[in-house]
Amino acid sequence: MRKVAVSSWASSKFSKGSKMSLFDLACEPCIQLIRESGISAKQIDAVLFSSCATDQYTSAIISEMLGIQPRISYRIDNLCNSGTNAVASAFASIASGLCDTVLVVGSEKVDSPGNRLLWDVTRGSFMLPVHWAAIFAKAHMKRYGTTEEQMAMVSVKNHKNAAKNPLALFGKEVTLQEVMNSKKIASPIKLLDCSAPCEGASAILLVSEEVARSLDNPVFIKGIGQQTNSASFARATTDLTTIEAAARAANSAFEMSQTKPSQIDIAELHDAFTILEIMAYEDLRFAKKGEGGKFVNQDQIVINPRGGIIGCGHPVGATGVAQVAEIASQLAGKAGKRQVKNCKTGLVHNLAAAGSSATVIVMGV
Amino acid sequence: MRKVAVSSWASSKFSKGSKMSLFDLACEPCIQLIRESGISAKQIDAVLFSSCATDQYTSAIISEMLGIQPRISYRIDNLCNSGTNAVASAFASIASGLCDTVLVVGSEKVDSPGNRLLWDVTRGSFMLPVHWAAIFAKAHMKRYGTTEEQMAMVSVKNHKNAAKNPLALFGKEVTLQEVMNSKKIASPIKLLDCSAPCEGASAILLVSEEVARSLDNPVFIKGIGQQTNSASFARATTDLTTIEAAARAANSAFEMSQTKPSQIDIAELHDAFTILEIMAYEDLRFAKKGEGGKFVNQDQIVINPRGGIIGCGHPVGATGVAQVAEIASQLAGKAGKRQVKNCKTGLVHNLAAAGSSATVIVMGV
Repeated sequence: MRKVAVSSWASSKFSKGSKMSLFDLACEPCIQLIRESGISAKQIDAVLFSSCATDQYTSAIISEMLGIQPRISYRIDNLCNSGTNAVASAFASIASGLCDTVLVVGSEKVDSPGNRLLWDVTRGSFMLPVHWAAIFAKAHMKRYGTTEEQMAMVSVKNHKNAAKNPLALFGKEVTLQEVMNSKKIASPIKLLDCSAPCEGASAILLVSEEVARSLDNPVFIKGIGQQTNSASFARATTDLTTIEAAARAANSAFEMSQTKPSQIDIAELHDAFTILEIMAYEDLRFAKKGEGGKFVNQDQIVINPRGGIIGCGHPVGATGVAQVAEIASQLAGKAGKRQVKNCKTGLVHNLAAAGSSATVIVMGV
Repeated sequence: MRKVAVSSWASSKFSKGSKMSLFDLACEPCIQLIRESGISAKQIDAVLFSSCATDQYTSAIISEMLGIQPRISYRIDNLCNSGTNAVASAFASIASGLCDTVLVVGSEKVDSPGNRLLWDVTRGSFMLPVHWAAIFAKAHMKRYGTTEEQMAMVSVKNHKNAAKNPLALFGKEVTLQEVMNSKKIASPIKLLDCSAPCEGASAILLVSEEVARSLDNPVFIKGIGQQTNSASFARATTDLTTIEAAARAANSAFEMSQTKPSQIDIAELHDAFTILEIMAYEDLRFAKKGEGGKFVNQDQIVINPRGGIIGCGHPVGATGVAQVAEIASQLAGKAGKRQVKNCKTGLVHNLAAAGSSATVIVMGV
């Protein structure tokens, strides 16, 4: 298998209000990436687009708008982990030798059809993601004594990180009290435990080892683990305190990269709701089962340095790409004001549809 | 690069009238494939879904309906060559070593949003594919003297082949006179020069060389060429008698597979309109430039043995998968009543959006 590196990245400002089209939105970080990386349109072999939008032949449209004539070009979707699925497909195209450089771009408008889970009748009238987050939270609280304060602390931490990220949807810190006093959406989940749908776009350039040799600080994708347990909530997990798909994906990613959880310095975790970050600590074996709540206070691993999904907002198809972009920029030492010192090994954890599917990516220098 | 084989295949009856959902439709050939191949759900590492439908997390839904928990699962779309893009992505996943067995399934309902080209303002009011087919036909007739009768002969041949295919939308032969007298849609294109939108599904199983060794007649994917020139018609080609993307994709596929056009015994060509098959003869270098019209009468290469898109109907996201399924079944010697004798090397040619993008796949035993 050929090695694959992330050589460049860019993201748009995540926001709620622009009148930009899905395509204009997608092109913005790509233009920045192309300008900053010095790569020419002719050097880009493939353009993969990640989005839940219903528009047709979107990757070809974006390619034309960017002046790229890629050999390989298609759109990928799988709800909230569309982005990391596109990264995995791009990885495979390079690792197999089909091509050398792939531009992966994710873009979503705020009214994305990816915000609702319409197919799954097992969810009953609980069609909104917040409903199943509440079920997970109650199960974790009941079995392990996880508290609402611990969940709130995840929100405080991620909003604090987002306040240092000019591209984040939320630019202000919040206090524990503010989270605890925010409106109850579906008990015990409160407004500030939730991420918010928004619009945004993110792009990364993946390149073969040969191309990466000319880079200053190549960051390699060392392991990818993926798992789809189901589409319906009823079959997603047999234990409501665990996202089984994430645990299985993590095992695969750690095995492929020959990495132990203890070696991870920095991670982007899928905190669409605060309880999901706590469960991720356990599913990724950063914390022992049941001890995720207490793990919020740890300082061994830097978690969600860009502000996570709670701080940055959740433009569905762009989220996974933005997560990979963040870890790549940190490992390359190019994260600017929010640069984490001495990070060598990073991880991305990206869920979809009530944790019924998951992608875990391990990256390193 | 690891070798990749097509080990099993199945297609539904292509039709216009069923009340089946997109998902029921997709599952039908998968169930047949799984039953006939004897593969268990646990052995399937990935499920890739090809469709232009606007439904969300479709690959996870189909996986759950089939009782499969794949590691890798996402939907791919790129209009009419969604199917071969999914095959290429599956190929890369196996060739890279990410997984060993991928179920690729394409499914489309008759009212697919993939039937119209809404984005491209350069098409003016010519939003329907038949409009640009008419432009190509006029250009080819003017420059090379290609005749309406030659185009009609493509339709006669493909309907004749479809009459032997119980899964085809059109089960009757048509005469040259019937094609010539059929209703003018956009001069010089007549009704029987056109394929018809329909519903249908097709599935194939791709496996690694290691898995393929246990098969009787493994059929390998030897070369894949892809090219996206544009999304808009205005930038798709500089010569209206050539589908440039197809010619470029063909060069790549022939090079990767170290195959010459003269070595192809059997091919599925993208005959959404009769003129496209004639142009494909030239773009694939089966015929010299300008001699595609006369090539209709040749008997060196068996073209569109299942009836092509004109005979089988065009369920957009399923078409590319069905094309690969046909060539695999023929090369494996398992095509039943329409088995072509002594075929060793086959080709699939799949276009999208006025030929602005193309996939060419070379397969062999």
